[in-house]
Amino acid sequence: MSRVDNKDETAFDPVTEADRAAEAAMRRLIAERFPEDGIDGEEHGLERGDADAVWILDPIDGTRGFIVGLPTWGVLIGRMEGGRPRIGMMHQPFVGETFFGDCETAVLTHGGTETPLKTRPCPDLADAALLSTGPDFFSDAERPAFDAVSRAAKLTRFGTDCYGYCVLAAGQADLVVEAGLKIQDIAPLIPIVEGAGGVVTDWSGGPAGSGGQVVASGDPRLHEQVLKKLSG
Amino acid sequence: MSRVDNKDETAFDPVTEADRAAEAAMRRLIAERFPEDGIDGEEHGLERGDADAVWILDPIDGTRGFIVGLPTWGVLIGRMEGGRPRIGMMHQPFVGETFFGDCETAVLTHGGTETPLKTRPCPDLADAALLSTGPDFFSDAERPAFDAVSRAAKLTRFGTDCYGYCVLAAGQADLVVEAGLKIQDIAPLIPIVEGAGGVVTDWSGGPAGSGGQVVASGDPRLHEQVLKKLSG
Repeated sequence: MSRVDNKDETAFDPVTEADRAAEAAMRRLIAERFPEDGIDGEEHGLERGDADAVWILDPIDGTRGFIVGLPTWGVLIGRMEGGRPRIGMMHQPFVGETFFGDCETAVLTHGGTETPLKTRPCPDLADAALLSTGPDFFSDAERPAFDAVSRAAKLTRFGTDCYGYCVLAAGQADLVVEAGLKIQDIAPLIPIVEGAGGVVTDWSGGPAGSGGQVVASGDPRLHEQVLKKLSG
Repeated sequence: MSRVDNKDETAFDPVTEADRAAEAAMRRLIAERFPEDGIDGEEHGLERGDADAVWILDPIDGTRGFIVGLPTWGVLIGRMEGGRPRIGMMHQPFVGETFFGDCETAVLTHGGTETPLKTRPCPDLADAALLSTGPDFFSDAERPAFDAVSRAAKLTRFGTDCYGYCVLAAGQADLVVEAGLKIQDIAPLIPIVEGAGGVVTDWSGGPAGSGGQVVASGDPRLHEQVLKKLSG
């Protein structure tokens, strides 16, 4: 197991050497190919943030899942254009799956086979499978709103990381509700969910590309219902 | 996606046709080879329960993970001898991993390679990675004890199903605390954890092979500490 550092002195936030080295490698390749683009990575920060196109990198999204050996973590790479997420990819190396989207279409590549991704219909929260990474990601102020959605949903499943947005895009779940996300945690996933027919916003219905409170729905009708519930 | 039935009228407990058909197939094979043994399966109940050796079958442990497409579920097969779990197996078909244990040794088979399983040292709860399937598996009476352990642990990760016991056996996590388990959810996993050097008991330190409140530790010193915390 790689060495684990503590980024945040007040809470446990594991970062491995592999994480940092992987981002440095991605930055080198992007700088060679797209020298005018900006790069915003979880480990090494923002460069050329005023460029029209900015790459968003999270070499290991779901670090806690990664260090305990659960295959829900992924390598996230996204591209913002004019401040909006336009292209995104999630790759799970151990399982060998790659989810890709460009807001118009989305596709899963696994074992040499490409499968189009399509969210499933689910107009009603009472029929929805709700996913979230963990209850401790919500603040005390946010928790009652999440709990209200969870109680109304058909089932709630924790521990999903970036994989949650991908199974939603694949039509196997209906809803992801999270909070406290960084731009790197969500921007690369939005083009996958949108490309599969889903909707991603913040809890007020505004853009979610910068992180914070995020809700993703496979069915736009479900999304409206959940936004009402989250706003009280 | 397979048809989903509701086994329990008061709560959502998904069961697929695949689940039932898989158990029927396992029962047929066991009855051919070991006609005198008992069989206790999650879907089709107990047969010859007074036999000395009883097979414990859970064709899809972690049904919620299964239906939302998260690879933490597994096929569990165990064998009790004289009322104690002696042999156990967890197979994750999508990832292609098989964890096997016989209380003395344990091994992971993946991609044709066999790797011995060995828990890691972790004498202190403050350094422990804690796993559990979900906070709603605890009753209101059980929840404070779990929360006390969770607060004292280094990190808590939900959504782990049977895969949690296997990553503990592999030395990637330190502790699993759960409640409300059935015999089929835990008996096949005990020989894997014990074979890798870990300990599995109920919350009072008694046998856990019948289910209920379960605590599994990779390090016996950690186990003693957690039992004290769980008992108040």
